[in-house]
Order: sequence, then structure tokens, then C-alpha cells
Amino acid sequence: MPVNLPSIENQILPPVPGVRLGWSEANIKKANHKDILVIEVADGSRVSGVFTQNRFCAAPVHICKQHLTESAQIKALVINTGNANAGTGEQGMQDAIATCEHLANLLQVPVNSILPFSTGVILEHLPMDKLLPGLAPAVSRLSEDAWHPAAWSIMTTDVAPKAYATSCQLGEHSVQVTGISKGAGMIHPNMATMLGFIATNAAISQSLLDEITKQIADLSFNCISVDGDTSTNDSFIMIATGQAGNTEITSREDEGFEVIFQSLLESAQYLAKAIVRDGEGATKFITVNVESALTHDEAKAIGYAIAKSPLVKTAMFACDPNLGRVLAAIGYASRDCASLADLDVDNIELYFAEVLVAEKGGRAQSYTEEAGQKIMQKAEIDITVKLNRGTQKATIWSCDFSYDYVRINAEYRT
Amino acid sequence: MPVNLPSIENQILPPVPGVRLGWSEANIKKANHKDILVIEVADGSRVSGVFTQNRFCAAPVHICKQHLTESAQIKALVINTGNANAGTGEQGMQDAIATCEHLANLLQVPVNSILPFSTGVILEHLPMDKLLPGLAPAVSRLSEDAWHPAAWSIMTTDVAPKAYATSCQLGEHSVQVTGISKGAGMIHPNMATMLGFIATNAAISQSLLDEITKQIADLSFNCISVDGDTSTNDSFIMIATGQAGNTEITSREDEGFEVIFQSLLESAQYLAKAIVRDGEGATKFITVNVESALTHDEAKAIGYAIAKSPLVKTAMFACDPNLGRVLAAIGYASRDCASLADLDVDNIELYFAEVLVAEKGGRAQSYTEEAGQKIMQKAEIDITVKLNRGTQKATIWSCDFSYDYVRINAEYRT
Repeated sequence: MPVNLPSIENQILPPVPGVRLGWSEANIKKANHKDILVIEVADGSRVSGVFTQNRFCAAPVHICKQHLTESAQIKALVINTGNANAGTGEQGMQDAIATCEHLANLLQVPVNSILPFSTGVILEHLPMDKLLPGLAPAVSRLSEDAWHPAAWSIMTTDVAPKAYATSCQLGEHSVQVTGISKGAGMIHPNMATMLGFIATNAAISQSLLDEITKQIADLSFNCISVDGDTSTNDSFIMIATGQAGNTEITSREDEGFEVIFQSLLESAQYLAKAIVRDGEGATKFITVNVESALTHDEAKAIGYAIAKSPLVKTAMFACDPNLGRVLAAIGYASRDCASLADLDVDNIELYFAEVLVAEKGGRAQSYTEEAGQKIMQKAEIDITVKLNRGTQKATIWSCDFSYDYVRINAEYRT
Repeated sequence: MPVNLPSIENQILPPVPGVRLGWSEANIKKANHKDILVIEVADGSRVSGVFTQNRFCAAPVHICKQHLTESAQIKALVINTGNANAGTGEQGMQDAIATCEHLANLLQVPVNSILPFSTGVILEHLPMDKLLPGLAPAVSRLSEDAWHPAAWSIMTTDVAPKAYATSCQLGEHSVQVTGISKGAGMIHPNMATMLGFIATNAAISQSLLDEITKQIADLSFNCISVDGDTSTNDSFIMIATGQAGNTEITSREDEGFEVIFQSLLESAQYLAKAIVRDGEGATKFITVNVESALTHDEAKAIGYAIAKSPLVKTAMFACDPNLGRVLAAIGYASRDCASLADLDVDNIELYFAEVLVAEKGGRAQSYTEEAGQKIMQKAEIDITVKLNRGTQKATIWSCDFSYDYVRINAEYRT
């Protein structure tokens, strides 16, 4: 079961004016299962995306990047689950383009105004005989009030759907932000995760939206790790339909920028953390804060070293306050960040929740195993590392490694 | 059970003239258990070592480096298991020095001629009341013919002891090489592993021994990974007693250099691979060969990305020929090696054993799931990646991730 992830059944997911969603069941991998989602965006909308940096990136990622460059107006997104269309060579590219062509024809829009996304098993060709006939039913269901089924329709190994909504006020104009995400395994995004979609009706210029999409990805989806494996299909998309009526925000100095930026960031961080809470086999949600670092990069390197360590993750699963494994991970983070080569471990303070557990290169005098045990029993564990050598910081969200992680990934294709 | 690791009971481990070994049971963590080893080396011996680059490196590692610098003649090594003396601050340094002082007194040698090693749980102080009284019984047992109990005495979570012996001929002089190692978890060495000791009676100059110790570590212990976690205590030591009677080898051009180098390398690679075969929970021994790379670093980055991927490792455990996870790992290795940012995945060939499984960015036409399944049933799996863009290569040895990996590491301290 996901760790402290509220059911979306109890979440109100208000429409974003200018965005319509429609799903269908195309039997791509499983029968009686929502596996196609079409998201139509109204004219005048801005769309920005960031994508995986995996060199084996999937065919739809290539096509998305190309269409975002070529097309002045994106008209629709199409997402299929059950098949990632990754590692599929030239045929994969043709299949992604054929998907766009079929949807473009149904919607009567240019082919390069469509962005395709796929998620699921790698190295299998898309079953086009099932996928293409699934597009018309999805188009026929297009509706502004369909974020709930949309969240269900993009799941793969996810146990629970993930969605978030918030609103803010830009002067007299009410602005809605609603988003969905999916992902549970192969999660260590490197630009964005597989998959996140956030829409708002605020008016934001294309160049500013491009800029903050990258920044928000870096502060949300790029701060999580389930298993250290970067997916071939990670994509994070932000849509701004501009229908709220506010004067277009074109720079960070504009009135209202901070308000909408914080709403978008809050949504992205919720959706990113939701992926970790639903991490494969997860029983704990772990927040790693690294503070007073020389650089953001070194804070992040230490955060990821702890978050990715199988030894730390299995100790967390066992509710074992194994300080030594955390210190060892801090110590080898210099493998990934040259500036850490002169890290003085005697200056480091390590906290589990609010309890100082290690300092001066060893266990804190005041620390007791009982205090550590008490924290480990909780479902949410905060680890804070103070390097005491600078002003930079980073936060990484992760989960533990359980028997179920092995079971889920040993059985995935069987 | 370790993967294809022969029992040392059937191995002949000949003495190395000039090296005596003695063990004792000091009850450091468990009763009735060999947990102290003293290795005495004769005057005239050369000793070289390489050590972990973990910034939280253990107190004995600091003392070893200091004594190797200060002392012209190392006289003895002392190893305790059950406690790593890592993350123990100033007290840890004092305990390591006190251990050296006690042994120096017993052997009537200078304190800085002793090299201390510790392995076991991190963050606990050494139980000096047990350790110190254990030294005299170990000294009283010193004998040249004690490599078997020595291999047993340095084990921690190891299921099986690890030892290797080989011999070679330098002109008319017979040369013996015998070594032992330990390690099963927290294995991703960064300079050397925890712990490896190889001794020979060949005469090799100090500067050449220093040079080849580093080189051999890079070609053996630095090519393995069990869980991606670099230990705080990794140490690899080579001893050359010089009692074989050969003219001292002082350079790579000297007669006999290649002969003794290959014998030492063969021993180090056997002992390094033995650690992987006994990797925590391992059921498969995986060899990852990366060929025709632009640089050695990029070959190694790809090898480690595959070897460390939890998704690849769980698939191997499940005997699942999951090509997609291997390709995804190749694709994200650019995270760790900048030169891979322009890797053209369409040129890559991927082999499982001798079977071509992927090429041109996707599954090979000739590949069948049956062929992949057949290879996966074996206990030893070779994965070969041909990048087809250069002449460099690297080999990484690794193992799978099983339920037992989680069990062993969830239960370690309980």
C-alpha cells in the first residue's frame, strides 16, 4: 500500500478551463482497463515539457521534442499505457507518428500539434491494431471534468492514482491548477519523471513557461528516487491555457508571478512525492535534507547517495536506525561530486527527525538507540545532514527497499 | 549459497616464506568464533596498500596510511572482525593505536610498524577489554602454514571463506603467491575492497610494488559491485617478502615482471570475484563486458550502471531476460560520464552470452525469448555491450538482487 497517499476519490479535481480529457480501454496489455488518455488543449494555450536524458529515450520522447520545436500551437496530448515504445528502433518512430496522424485526423488538427506519450513494457512494439481504434472512443469522451478517470488511465505498476489540485488568485482572476502523475518503478528522473501533467488556466508567456517548467521539474520530479534507475520515457508537461483572464505573465518580476509559481511548484512536489509514496514495495516515505553545503550539486549528491543506498533502504524497511550505513553513504558521495573530496566528516551533524544522532565523526553522546527506534517505527522518516561548510541545500524524497520490491520486479514480465 | 565458489577445504594454500599467521577467538561480537588475525612479515619484506576513498573512512584506515608512510619496515598486520571501528571519532583513533601498541609490545617491534584493520558493524566502539587479551593467543599461534584458518578468521557476513594460491617461476626461483579476502555486502570498492591480502615471496622493489598494487586493485577489486555501497574500511594489501631468491624486480622492463604480475593479478581477480560469488543473497554471478568504447571511463560507467541497477539485478534473480532494463541502464550511464552524452544507441550491440539480443536501438531480428530464457537459467551470465565507437573496454563483476539480499540486510543488526 502507498505510504500516506490519500485516495484521490476524496480529492476534488476541478476542471482547468481550456483543457478537456477523454479516456478509453484499448486492451493494449490488459482487458477492461483504461489505457488511453487524450488531453485536448484550447487554442492559445502554452505547453512546455522536459524529458528524460536517458540515451535510450523512447520514440514518443523524440517525437514530443520535435513537435514542441516545430509547432506554434500544441492541440492535444495522447498517452498510452501497457507499452513504452522504447528500444523499438525505426518501427517505434513510425508507430508514434502514426498515432499522432490518427489523432490529428480525428481532431482535424496538424500532425505536429500532437504530443505522444507511452509507458509500460520496454522493447515491445506498440500493438497499433489495438491502439489506433482506441483513439476515437477517447475523443468522444472529451470533457473538462475528467481528471479522476485521467489519473487512473495513465497507471502501470502504480498501486494508486496520483492527482493534485490547488487554486490561487491573480488579482481579481481565480486561477486553477490541476495535475496528474504516474510512476512507481524505474524512478530516478533526470530532467522529469514518467509521467507528470499539470495544467492551469493562468496566462503565462511561452518563454517564461519553458523556463519555469525546467525549474519546477528540478525542484520536484528531479528530487525523487525509488530505485536509482532513470526511465526511458520520463516526461513532465505543463499547460497554461490562458483562460483565467489575467494579464499574461511574461517575467519573474510581473505581479502574480510568485503566486502562480508557488501553486505550480506545490502541485509538482505533491505529484512527485506521490510517486515515491507509491514506490514499488515502499513501506516508508523518506525525506533526505542536506543543508549548509558548499554547492547545490554536493548537497544533491549526498542526498541521492543516501536515498539510493540499498543498505540504507533495507535498514529503513527493517525499522533499524542504522546510522553507520547513512554515514557510509555520505562518505562515498564524493564518487559523484568532486568538491566532496575534501569533506571533513568531523564537522557533519546527522539528525533522524529532530534527534541529533551523529556528530564529530561518530555517534552523538546524547543519542540513544531507543530514540532512534522510536523514529524508525514511523511511516515518514526525515533524515537531515548538516555539512556546516556553506549555505546551499537540497531535499531528496525516497522510499525503502522491501521484499515486495524484489517480488514486484522479479515477477514484472511473468 | 555462494555462486560457483569452490570450498577452500579442497584448496591447497602453500605457505609464503617470510609470512606467518596466527588467529584467536576474542569474543568481539560472537563467542567461539575466530575474530582476530595477526600476520607477521619477515624483515626485508615490502608491503603496499590501497584504501577506501569513503570520506567516513575508518580509524584503522587512517592509521594504516600513516604507518605505511612513516615506517621503512612493516612488521605485522592485525585484523579484527565483529567491529569496523568506523564512525568512532577520536576514541576510534585511540583504540586503533592502542591495538598497535599492544601488539608491538608482544612482538617487540616499533608501534608504527603495525598495520591495523577492522571489519564489522559501524559506529560501535571497539571492545578493547576483549580485543587486547585476544592478541597474545594469536601471536602464540603464528605459523607459516595457517592460511586456511586465516581465511576463516576475517569473515563477517561472508557465507564462505575466500582464498587463492598460485605459483610461478622466476628463472630458477620458485615463487609462491597466496592470498585471502572477505566481503559480501557494502561492496562497491573505490580503490580496493574490504579486505584483501596477497603475499608472495618474490623480491619486488617498494616503488614498483606500490605501483602495481594500485594497478592490480583497479583491475580486480575495483571492478566489482554487490550493492553499490562503498565501505568505510576497504583495504587491499600486497606483501612481497623477497625470500624467493630472485634478483629484485624494480621495473616493468625487468625479466620476470610479467610472470609475477600475472600471478598477482590472477590471485586478486579470483579473490575479488569470490566476494561477488558470495555477495549477500546472490544466486547469479554476472560478468558485464563493455567493449569498443571511446574511453575506459565510459566503458566502466556503463558496466557499473548495468551492474548496480536494482531492476536489472531483480530481473536476473527472476531468470528474466529483460533486455529493456539493460538498455535503459546503458542509456542513463551518461549521468556518471559526460562523454556518453553523445552516445548513439543505434550503433550498440548487446549480447547475452554469445546471443545477439539487441541492435539498432531495439531487439535483434534473430533474437528469440527462448534463447534468452535458456541463458538466464544459468548461474553465470555474461552480458556484453559493444558500443562500436572506440577501442577501450572494461569488465565489471556483479551479482543479482534476491529476497535474501533484503532479508540479510534487514536483519543485520537484530
